[in-house]
Amino acid sequence: MVAKSDSHLFPECYPLVPPREILDRQAALTEALAGEVDAALISWPADLFYLTGSNQIGHLLVAPGREPVFLVRRTPDRAAAEGPLAVAPLNGFGDLGRAVEDLLGRRPARLGLALDVTPHREVASLSEQLGGPELFDLSPTIMRLRSVKSQWEIDQITQAGRINREVMAKVPRMFKPHMTEADLAGAMMHEAMALGCQAFMRTRSVVGEMYPWHVVAGDRALLTSRVEAPFGGLGASPSFPQGASLAPIGPGEMILADFGCCYLGYLADVTRMFSWGPPPERGLEAYRALIEIQERLMAALVPGADGQDLYRLAMETAEELGFGLEFLGQGAAEIKFVGHGVGLEISEPPYLAKNRKELLEAGQTLALELKMVLPGLGAVGLENTVLVTPEGGRLLSDANEEFIQIEAS
Amino acid sequence: MVAKSDSHLFPECYPLVPPREILDRQAALTEALAGEVDAALISWPADLFYLTGSNQIGHLLVAPGREPVFLVRRTPDRAAAEGPLAVAPLNGFGDLGRAVEDLLGRRPARLGLALDVTPHREVASLSEQLGGPELFDLSPTIMRLRSVKSQWEIDQITQAGRINREVMAKVPRMFKPHMTEADLAGAMMHEAMALGCQAFMRTRSVVGEMYPWHVVAGDRALLTSRVEAPFGGLGASPSFPQGASLAPIGPGEMILADFGCCYLGYLADVTRMFSWGPPPERGLEAYRALIEIQERLMAALVPGADGQDLYRLAMETAEELGFGLEFLGQGAAEIKFVGHGVGLEISEPPYLAKNRKELLEAGQTLALELKMVLPGLGAVGLENTVLVTPEGGRLLSDANEEFIQIEAS
Repeated sequence: MVAKSDSHLFPECYPLVPPREILDRQAALTEALAGEVDAALISWPADLFYLTGSNQIGHLLVAPGREPVFLVRRTPDRAAAEGPLAVAPLNGFGDLGRAVEDLLGRRPARLGLALDVTPHREVASLSEQLGGPELFDLSPTIMRLRSVKSQWEIDQITQAGRINREVMAKVPRMFKPHMTEADLAGAMMHEAMALGCQAFMRTRSVVGEMYPWHVVAGDRALLTSRVEAPFGGLGASPSFPQGASLAPIGPGEMILADFGCCYLGYLADVTRMFSWGPPPERGLEAYRALIEIQERLMAALVPGADGQDLYRLAMETAEELGFGLEFLGQGAAEIKFVGHGVGLEISEPPYLAKNRKELLEAGQTLALELKMVLPGLGAVGLENTVLVTPEGGRLLSDANEEFIQIEAS
Repeated sequence: MVAKSDSHLFPECYPLVPPREILDRQAALTEALAGEVDAALISWPADLFYLTGSNQIGHLLVAPGREPVFLVRRTPDRAAAEGPLAVAPLNGFGDLGRAVEDLLGRRPARLGLALDVTPHREVASLSEQLGGPELFDLSPTIMRLRSVKSQWEIDQITQAGRINREVMAKVPRMFKPHMTEADLAGAMMHEAMALGCQAFMRTRSVVGEMYPWHVVAGDRALLTSRVEAPFGGLGASPSFPQGASLAPIGPGEMILADFGCCYLGYLADVTRMFSWGPPPERGLEAYRALIEIQERLMAALVPGADGQDLYRLAMETAEELGFGLEFLGQGAAEIKFVGHGVGLEISEPPYLAKNRKELLEAGQTLALELKMVLPGLGAVGLENTVLVTPEGGRLLSDANEEFIQIEAS
């Protein structure tokens, strides 16, 4: 084992996860896995950071009746300084099976792994090293635990929301006539990074390629793409065909800034609207409808509410307000959800989606993602990160909700 | 099949891959796979973009004696407009096996997949849909093809190098006394994005979490971390424990900017040195040694040269110049390579590494990654992206190579 150093390696500006958080999460995981597996190995960054407080390269070994051990290939000393768990060095992936066997005193008959994100070659190699244990997919269990946040986690998301508010507030000053979407998105990234935002955004998909700079303007914003949204934007090139592009922003164009901020791994997902000069009247009407839809959803966002009912409530409100076709897009591009959980990854349970029963719990955090498609005009969106409470949704992101008209000349 | 539209969807600022490139790559892949598989499916973004010119969400089906078909879940129309291959819509992953069977007229007995990066759950599901074909790992074949670049690809890397040069040239103007590493890194990201840089950086690892903003200063630069380098830097938090941090840059501190730029998917990996006021004399000496090591490596970077010999040449030169201990770090943190291929991913074959035979070919592109660890002082690095030619290495990145002393007050 690696000796626990204190965190003197790290200056004040490097916040650590409180040890109590990690120990509580370990206890919850152990309880959830009782009777399911002989051992579990966790290596996916969001899960690893959640359960260890560190994101070094390695594998957390959890087994019933034993203390967890973080087997770290790179860098063990740092992992020991970053979190409260026992750390043991690991030479390479080829030694993982042996290390597990040594620590357990036997080979596990039933092994838990995150089968949704662990490469086939890695699973096959480990399986061979351990004599072919039965495999159990850990991911649903971990995602369920992760979906309900502690007060400390809510505080981190709130901090991410504060960074977002500061960035959004500076957009009118960053704006220059005819600047490109990418230039504006870059200015927002600079501001966010200077304020402590982690610029790398996690998602639970090995091909997800998530990014914070979804800053799109005009009707090119409506181009659909790989991202699961009613519009993807143009993007920089077919290599990265979504988000901010190198097209200049023209006068009167609506600018949609779907700009996630991340603090200590925790995300606030937020969308706000801007325009250079007055936007189309229809855009303002659509935005007012989104404000109304958000208001009704927030009132209904209580423990026990069913996600599919909230989806229906949003759809019915959009129809009532005359935006039934525009809300969430049309045809093949239409999406079937109005909200998704958010935390260490940008899209996680629970979902507020069509025909998907999902009973909300207090302490869950979601992005209410309300989007309108106005053909020929552009995209309109309003998104906030919110907490489920017995009194309804509570805003964790607090950027100004006005549709901001920038008076650059 | 989806009708091929022309690319009128896209404005001039959205460059497409020439169809000839894609067709040549398809021909090379078909030849390389002859006799190896009945069918291959490609979905990893770097490979998919290489072979289709598009990065929509889907699976490229390649089979001997048949035209390739790009099965696209999201968004088929756009995939058809972005590249020359036939595109067919795919409802969801659960329909992939059936679609493959329908297109081939039978189930493949031997199926190629990228087993290093495709999740176990996906491989298991597909395998079941297709009645358990024998699996073949496509990745070594694709990586070998990708390692030798066409002139068009070299031009894209050169363009990425030009963006990098512009960003590096502006660092002295971006610098403010006591600004944080993250603030400087953010200013560089803003500049790069405005110049057309794709801010998302690809790596061939599902837990790789690669990033362009490795801007680290002072002796905290030397903290090791998850990244495969002799130093990882402090980073923003244990959630992202590498690269730029929220620590302020002090006077006399050496600032290492390892700042990759990406254009149309192609990367130039570059490191330059800066300091606020005069840096330590030992830092300047170390940097001069790196210049000399680079010069000798460049002369030896010819087709037929063996990567392990180049590694040895670099080590011996460092020793000769009195930097045998400092070069590439010491102890557990020491790395065993002085160069890695670069292209659509930040680290790909060939490698210039200890005890690894690898004969270079004309047209391969590498980052020569030369790093010194000066305990108590900080990190010193010099890195360029270069092309293997019969006359030796040719620089594709051309930022000023002086150790820049910034005279901010």
